[in-house]
Amino acid sequence: MSRWASLSEKTRQELLQARAFLSAVAEPPAQALARFVAERGARGALDAILRERAPEQVQAEVEARRSGLSGEQLLRAGEAAGLRLLIPERPGWPHEAFAELVGAREVELPDVAEPLALWVRGRGELAELAERTVAIVGARAASGYGEHVAAEFGHGLSRAGFTVVSGAAYGIDGAAHRGALSAGGRTVAFLACGADLDYPAGHSRLLRAIADQGAVISEYPPGTPPRKHRFLVRNRLIAAMGQATVVVEAGARSGAANTANTADLLGRPVLAVPGPVTAQNSVGCHVMVRSGQAVLVTRADEVVELLSPLGVRPAEEVEGRSRATDRLHPDARRVHDALMGMDSASDGEIARDCGLPLGRVRAVLPELEIEGFAKRTESGWTATKR
Amino acid sequence: MSRWASLSEKTRQELLQARAFLSAVAEPPAQALARFVAERGARGALDAILRERAPEQVQAEVEARRSGLSGEQLLRAGEAAGLRLLIPERPGWPHEAFAELVGAREVELPDVAEPLALWVRGRGELAELAERTVAIVGARAASGYGEHVAAEFGHGLSRAGFTVVSGAAYGIDGAAHRGALSAGGRTVAFLACGADLDYPAGHSRLLRAIADQGAVISEYPPGTPPRKHRFLVRNRLIAAMGQATVVVEAGARSGAANTANTADLLGRPVLAVPGPVTAQNSVGCHVMVRSGQAVLVTRADEVVELLSPLGVRPAEEVEGRSRATDRLHPDARRVHDALMGMDSASDGEIARDCGLPLGRVRAVLPELEIEGFAKRTESGWTATKR
Repeated sequence: MSRWASLSEKTRQELLQARAFLSAVAEPPAQALARFVAERGARGALDAILRERAPEQVQAEVEARRSGLSGEQLLRAGEAAGLRLLIPERPGWPHEAFAELVGAREVELPDVAEPLALWVRGRGELAELAERTVAIVGARAASGYGEHVAAEFGHGLSRAGFTVVSGAAYGIDGAAHRGALSAGGRTVAFLACGADLDYPAGHSRLLRAIADQGAVISEYPPGTPPRKHRFLVRNRLIAAMGQATVVVEAGARSGAANTANTADLLGRPVLAVPGPVTAQNSVGCHVMVRSGQAVLVTRADEVVELLSPLGVRPAEEVEGRSRATDRLHPDARRVHDALMGMDSASDGEIARDCGLPLGRVRAVLPELEIEGFAKRTESGWTATKR
Repeated sequence: MSRWASLSEKTRQELLQARAFLSAVAEPPAQALARFVAERGARGALDAILRERAPEQVQAEVEARRSGLSGEQLLRAGEAAGLRLLIPERPGWPHEAFAELVGAREVELPDVAEPLALWVRGRGELAELAERTVAIVGARAASGYGEHVAAEFGHGLSRAGFTVVSGAAYGIDGAAHRGALSAGGRTVAFLACGADLDYPAGHSRLLRAIADQGAVISEYPPGTPPRKHRFLVRNRLIAAMGQATVVVEAGARSGAANTANTADLLGRPVLAVPGPVTAQNSVGCHVMVRSGQAVLVTRADEVVELLSPLGVRPAEEVEGRSRATDRLHPDARRVHDALMGMDSASDGEIARDCGLPLGRVRAVLPELEIEGFAKRTESGWTATKR
């Protein structure tokens, strides 16, 4: 029996209401509040805030929104909008994914703290969805190339059993989600606004599909509008939820580069897909590879290999085509090379052309004949195939 | 006075004839012969070969071509074809470039040995041309993208004062030479046949232009036809002559990959240009970067930076565009973000939206007004620019 199951219904409701309140009372990432909640628990922190007895830093974070806020009302609003509230006290919280954020907060990484609660649209169980994950991020203003590649990675990683995590934005994000959906796989979107909002508006159908095959998630309470800085803040959840982050088309100073930086700071592998150097779209990816921050990847199975402790090897197509003459001894290849460049030749002419001793040429020629690479004619030896 | 200048005309002629003979008597890379010449000198080695007193391995290398060969005739043939003979004893030999090949031979790298002589078409002094060099290599069957990038690198490196070294093949090689020529710079082509031959035939004008602004060079005596294995053997000279090797579009198992391997074995930096992962053309480049064999480069000035001991920094365009709000304090940016998302708002509404304490919001708003980012209206505060 989990701790949650042993709690009274009243306690459960108090915890949910306290977390709903805390998720709304400060603008994430509220580092002082997160630390205070970790120390006092959700109900203790709530109590201290309402009595204005929280530490000064916490009071500063909550001052603007504290009055009139009700956890109960927020829960009802969420329910009305079809959202569930996930909290750390309840089974299903992805503790492992966010453990790094707690660690990051403790070493005072600027602007990083674990979420106090998560509002979830969709049926997927986040703890399950979080078991094997890859984040795919990139530019909104992506090229056709970038969207194609993002969809391929989303599809391939999904088929390999990974949940594809992204931000539901236009461009790379959307293509990555769609790739996962097209494989019938699981995908999760973290929004920079309330999880009940269809943002961006053009992705309302996509967001419904993501909720059906995974989850649409936000740490912001229902109805919170998107703000520019919320995208950067949201990115840390994508970085934390992905066991690795794949960057497809990113400017040198972009949201995707920010997500990659956070993933790197959290100790997660960053992988970057290259592109043409003649366009600006992949500049950020190339910079990450050049600086050593990211590993270059070209196919989904290379990501799978990197994330597989047992070292699954990708298909060997990179080894190049083999040639018919590969199995020949180097001397035989030299004789064959010479034959290929001559109409027909005596063994002496062949020896001079390729520079091998006559005896060696005479030993090699019958081998080449047997293997079908050379034949004897009236006017001398000739090559028969490449 | 150099040692060469102190030699009698007769001795000089003997040395040139001996080297001409040695360059033709064995198929390069003739490791035993190269070692023997290094020990005995060119005239001593020639004498031993003619008397059949050379070591067994040397005799095997020269057996097929020894009889009837004349250094004097070869020199005349070269002269008639407009070629000069460069030899290590004479000023102008690029000793530094080939020192690594001697070292490679001594640790018994398979198929590597220094050239015994070089036949040169063109006016360029090789020792000068070899001072600052970059090799650019890649696929014959290059894409338009690859040829464009190779030409850009050739042009940029040439402008930066580097001699562009390549193999005069169709595709990347040709584009790299042309890029250098278009910048009025210096470029050197190493051929896999006699330096007097126009190979490939479609590049005869290009080869003339290369000879005019640099040199067309071969270790093979005049008239030697190209053979498949000679391209691989020739590649070691390109790798050795380049202080770094840039690979543009290469298959995983290609001539360019072979040149890159040799450069790597010789301790020279290998740089690879990425490309779309949706085509096969850049697979070899991506493999080299993934494996750590090559550093990813996207522009000529990144190559210049890598080769500059003083660390010249490339232009900072990779740092991304700056934004008007960059100079604002993070809190001011948060307030501005909130304003951007609201029609007009009171300071209390702004505080709740962005989650900053009311006092902080009231302190920041006048700053934003002074900087031109916000203005006070009858209905409240509004944002005035992005």
